Amino acid sequence: MLEKLLLPEIQELIANKDEQTLRETLNRWPPSEVVALFSELSDEDDLAAMRMLRGPQRARVFEYMDRVSQQKLLASFSEAEVGSLLNEIADDDRTALLARFEEVDQQRMLRLLDDEQRALAESLLQYPEDSVGRLMTRHFVSVRAHWTVQQVLDHIRQHGQDSETLNVVYIVDEENRLIDDLRIRQVLLARPNQHLEELLDQVFVALRTTDPKRSAVDVFRQHARTALPVLDAEGKLLGVVTIDDVLNVAEEAATQDMQKLGGLEALSEPYVTTPLMTMVRKRATWLVVLFLGELLTATAMSYFEDDIAKAVVLALFVPLIISSGGNSGSQAATLIVRALALGEVTLRDWWWVLRRELGSGAVLGAILGLIGFLRIAVWSLFSDIYGPHWLLVGITVGCSLVGIVLWGTLSGSMLPFLLKRAGLDPATSSAPFVATLVDVTGLIIYFSVATLVLTGTLL
Amino acid sequence: MLEKLLLPEIQELIANKDEQTLRETLNRWPPSEVVALFSELSDEDDLAAMRMLRGPQRARVFEYMDRVSQQKLLASFSEAEVGSLLNEIADDDRTALLARFEEVDQQRMLRLLDDEQRALAESLLQYPEDSVGRLMTRHFVSVRAHWTVQQVLDHIRQHGQDSETLNVVYIVDEENRLIDDLRIRQVLLARPNQHLEELLDQVFVALRTTDPKRSAVDVFRQHARTALPVLDAEGKLLGVVTIDDVLNVAEEAATQDMQKLGGLEALSEPYVTTPLMTMVRKRATWLVVLFLGELLTATAMSYFEDDIAKAVVLALFVPLIISSGGNSGSQAATLIVRALALGEVTLRDWWWVLRRELGSGAVLGAILGLIGFLRIAVWSLFSDIYGPHWLLVGITVGCSLVGIVLWGTLSGSMLPFLLKRAGLDPATSSAPFVATLVDVTGLIIYFSVATLVLTGTLL
Repeated sequence: MLEKLLLPEIQELIANKDEQTLRETLNRWPPSEVVALFSELSDEDDLAAMRMLRGPQRARVFEYMDRVSQQKLLASFSEAEVGSLLNEIADDDRTALLARFEEVDQQRMLRLLDDEQRALAESLLQYPEDSVGRLMTRHFVSVRAHWTVQQVLDHIRQHGQDSETLNVVYIVDEENRLIDDLRIRQVLLARPNQHLEELLDQVFVALRTTDPKRSAVDVFRQHARTALPVLDAEGKLLGVVTIDDVLNVAEEAATQDMQKLGGLEALSEPYVTTPLMTMVRKRATWLVVLFLGELLTATAMSYFEDDIAKAVVLALFVPLIISSGGNSGSQAATLIVRALALGEVTLRDWWWVLRRELGSGAVLGAILGLIGFLRIAVWSLFSDIYGPHWLLVGITVGCSLVGIVLWGTLSGSMLPFLLKRAGLDPATSSAPFVATLVDVTGLIIYFSVATLVLTGTLL
Repeated sequence: MLEKLLLPEIQELIANKDEQTLRETLNRWPPSEVVALFSELSDEDDLAAMRMLRGPQRARVFEYMDRVSQQKLLASFSEAEVGSLLNEIADDDRTALLARFEEVDQQRMLRLLDDEQRALAESLLQYPEDSVGRLMTRHFVSVRAHWTVQQVLDHIRQHGQDSETLNVVYIVDEENRLIDDLRIRQVLLARPNQHLEELLDQVFVALRTTDPKRSAVDVFRQHARTALPVLDAEGKLLGVVTIDDVLNVAEEAATQDMQKLGGLEALSEPYVTTPLMTMVRKRATWLVVLFLGELLTATAMSYFEDDIAKAVVLALFVPLIISSGGNSGSQAATLIVRALALGEVTLRDWWWVLRRELGSGAVLGAILGLIGFLRIAVWSLFSDIYGPHWLLVGITVGCSLVGIVLWGTLSGSMLPFLLKRAGLDPATSSAPFVATLVDVTGLIIYFSVATLVLTGTLL
């Protein structure tokens, strides 16, 4: 877009220190375009250019930056610059920004605000971290039901400047309780002399300050709104949540679920801004838990040590067998965790899912079992790598695979339900977690089948 | 909300067959609330209630339904009902709906449309499946730059009824080329006699019909817009994409990435509506590929068969060792795949990531190596399960773990970059895929360390 076309000109302006022109240009551009331009500039030029922006434009540009750039910029700003920025940026963006800092830095930054803004910032920060209150802006347009459409338009023109969105107007009673909301389209399509009362249907969708952020995503998706009102326990209108913030919440929620599925604690920051030691800690926790679980495989194997000593050929297939259980379990767990997160299945569907996965698991197990058997059979035609009893070895491996893949599929699909039932996060049933569970039982299945099939010949 | 309060009343109306009241109520409610009500009703009542809705309201309600309910409903509708529904629903929703059907059913449904709607539907379906064209609505409000604000408001009032969104107005020249877009707030805050020219900054963000859907998510996120214009190659305004559709695209993209990370081909439908055999096929493909890869572990193990025969104790730790490599690889791959998808890291960051992961991998490896060694040492104090050379066995396991965790972390973090560099999807580097890669090399590392440490004693 624009920034690619004009980059050389802008770089020239910076090099020539033509502050006048640069200032005019940057202050006129839409903030998101300025951010796009900045991402093409070097860090130094970036900072120099940011200093040229006027207060409100600087705040708008800052709001559009990604976290990494915001962090860099704040670090390079003087205390006075940070203060004026914080006073200017939108209240919901400020809440998110402040929440990223440790308590002591947060307090320091709050002291830079003027009284009115500090009171506002503190009231928003008091909501729980993952609640809708933290996404809320206090700047919105509220009108009264007896007004005409023309009065509403006039009111917006006079008082709408600070409102985060003008896509929706909120109708409240004399005690600030929400009566209804109207999308701006309904206002724009109505006759100017119509009273709002004629347009209202008394039906609205609202969030509560204490609702979890994630549930807001579902509400926005179901109702296809661009903004939703936020009420307190008495139905009073406290603020508004806009869909751009909710898009971010949805992306973050998906990221965190993915990270949990990948077998680590979810990061609260992007990968690039997470300090190395925080990340190591979040990964080490699960890695150690899984390792301790996996130590049971060594215990299980030691029970079968005599069998292995008698038939070393059995040991050759251990990685193949347990990994097949882990892979099929990982597939099933991923499918169910995501389906639960999106509300496509709920707890009461567990029985339907179980029957379905029983079918899938049996078919998948049969496929892998057959391939495993054939591999041993074909190899044995050309070599005696698997010894004279290759047929029995092949049957052992084939039958174990059927059992283990079936078992992996069932564990993987049922574990998310169990976790959710127990009030835990289903996404904890990560690929590595399911694999570890299945490894131990897989070994027991494998060696039990071996005992059944091979006793009297190899064992 | 409403639907919970009124559910008993509605059920009573249905039971009493009081069609009159029911019809009035349902046709007055906002469509999203009707959908919420339907989800509480039984399937039969659901269908009965849907039949009571008038044409346009029925279409709106249908648009708000999830895929599963839409499918069920269509199946139970007569051909005439399907036809009138398809003629009424929004063009972008219709494109998405039609795209879900096989070619032959799609053609059958297109024939149910009237001429104008069929031409529109066909023109939208001609865009590639994953392109922005498929998300586009042709219904928007375009105005001219020399108009006054009041003229724009009058135009909207007369012609805006069919527009998908009135949150943005588009300014075009005489040849329908886009000059600029204005958020409705800019129009509402301006004086009625101002000309649009004074408000324009000639800077706008637009999508192309051929842009991939996923890239639209990034543009919406960066620019915090609720609607974006879609242009053809000559800059002419063809349509508009609204953020509610983009929220769905973001969720779907995350779902598909998760499924790939979980080691299966991404499903194109929700879990619950995917036919069992389709799902088995999508899972079997990767399961078989991984199995064939994993067969190499059997080959690798057979090279070390003599070692295992001499020191069966080595076999006991095989599952523990290879799973640790797989788990650390899964963590790294998940982090990098998601960071790449969100644009937090790009291809040119590979070197930075490599150094960072080298650090993480070494620390994580050291932690697991130490635990592994301690476990063997402590157990050996109380039993002779690991034989007289337990110290050497402990050193072998400990050192192997350091190497394997480091190797798993590096492979897991670099594989997504390699895939992306090769023009493939980074999300293919699933937890199971990385685990399989690491398993084979992990065995080689383990038995090589064993040969180094144990030759002369156990080997």
